[in-house]
Amino acid sequence: MTTAGQAPGQAQANLIAIPKDWAYDFLLFTHRNPKPCPVLDVLDAGETVSALKPDADVRTHAPRYRIWEHGELTAEPENATDHWRDDLVTFLVGCSFTFETALVNAGVPLRHVEQQRNVSMFVTDIQCRSAGRLHGPMVVSMRWIPESLVDIAHKVTALMPSVHGSPVGAGDPRMLGIEDVHRPDFGDAVTPEPGDVPVFWACGVTPQAVLMKSKPPFAITHAPGQMFVTDMPDFAYRVG
Amino acid sequence: MTTAGQAPGQAQANLIAIPKDWAYDFLLFTHRNPKPCPVLDVLDAGETVSALKPDADVRTHAPRYRIWEHGELTAEPENATDHWRDDLVTFLVGCSFTFETALVNAGVPLRHVEQQRNVSMFVTDIQCRSAGRLHGPMVVSMRWIPESLVDIAHKVTALMPSVHGSPVGAGDPRMLGIEDVHRPDFGDAVTPEPGDVPVFWACGVTPQAVLMKSKPPFAITHAPGQMFVTDMPDFAYRVG
Repeated sequence: MTTAGQAPGQAQANLIAIPKDWAYDFLLFTHRNPKPCPVLDVLDAGETVSALKPDADVRTHAPRYRIWEHGELTAEPENATDHWRDDLVTFLVGCSFTFETALVNAGVPLRHVEQQRNVSMFVTDIQCRSAGRLHGPMVVSMRWIPESLVDIAHKVTALMPSVHGSPVGAGDPRMLGIEDVHRPDFGDAVTPEPGDVPVFWACGVTPQAVLMKSKPPFAITHAPGQMFVTDMPDFAYRVG
Repeated sequence: MTTAGQAPGQAQANLIAIPKDWAYDFLLFTHRNPKPCPVLDVLDAGETVSALKPDADVRTHAPRYRIWEHGELTAEPENATDHWRDDLVTFLVGCSFTFETALVNAGVPLRHVEQQRNVSMFVTDIQCRSAGRLHGPMVVSMRWIPESLVDIAHKVTALMPSVHGSPVGAGDPRMLGIEDVHRPDFGDAVTPEPGDVPVFWACGVTPQAVLMKSKPPFAITHAPGQMFVTDMPDFAYRVG
């Protein structure tokens, strides 16, 4: 069940837990790719509680998890406790669901929420800047937005760089190497209204595309669109 | 010689090079303390050229360097090449000099530049969030600003979070544990004009205060106020 449209006003986060001997590469990767991977919190190895949600366990609080072995998705449990290892370092990465309340408040409709669907996500042909053993393509989320409101959507989200900030593109999906905007790689297809154009934001599912390409021996992530909802107000991630 | 007021329109950076086995702790420290330590670039171990200034060597481009051994300042050379080690990982961290052109353009005078001095910097009693073996207090830079322009200075700098963003305080230095605003810990004392109030921004000299407290065996930094001037336009670090 997607958390899109849930917990309005609260920041949501992508989750990735990776063995400690891969943590430097991942942390460096996030620094070199701040648009898809804005880090909100990094736990110590083995730690299972984040300051962003003190009453929750990072292994159980997201609706669904993904277990990765050597770049292969091997399980999708609702509870990741059985897969936990004490050498795992958990990263919480900003999620674009966090700016959706601000978009609604600015008058920008959210088609996926209206249609009770997950947001559409696509693997692009933009290669991230590599870091150590980690490399892979950028993933984007896509929202159908009335053409007259694209500029407002840009302005609203640009002020929230920790949750992906301004769009990386709008209009032509092919400029990102996306062939069919109605067939997402993750999440659901969403139906546009007349006059809508597709707008693309860097997405925190990018680390999962990186896992597939870089094949570290083990990792746990959330399932796309089924986020770790924090206690932090979304306003905390707005600048200016 | 300070780089304050030099190279208007170009981003300036703090520099710290630390042995590879301390790099994860430092990278984690920067993530946990984004206000004083917004990372602009991280080089690979042994690498000496940053993408932010491709034609320069990070060991010679700043006007002056500091050599640190076990938390003690042992030398202040103009050229750090003789102290270089191939296991050093160089970090470039945002510098508040980068938003000074924007302040001037917004009508905010810069007393230290008018007086051809380095900016004043102070060690505060605010403890940074620790990361692994690294801990220490936050350092701030201080600018005298006409009271009527403090709000404008806040607005202008809030939009540049990668170069320290909005002030961490204004008015009363004691709230930061600063006893005498005319006796800085780094840089020069600056003379206020009538009606000026002190305004404080988180400062990229914080890693040097952390070196003093945490005592890693070796590090190279720039000398405070004698920055690594990049080729990046300051506008690149403005959001919105």
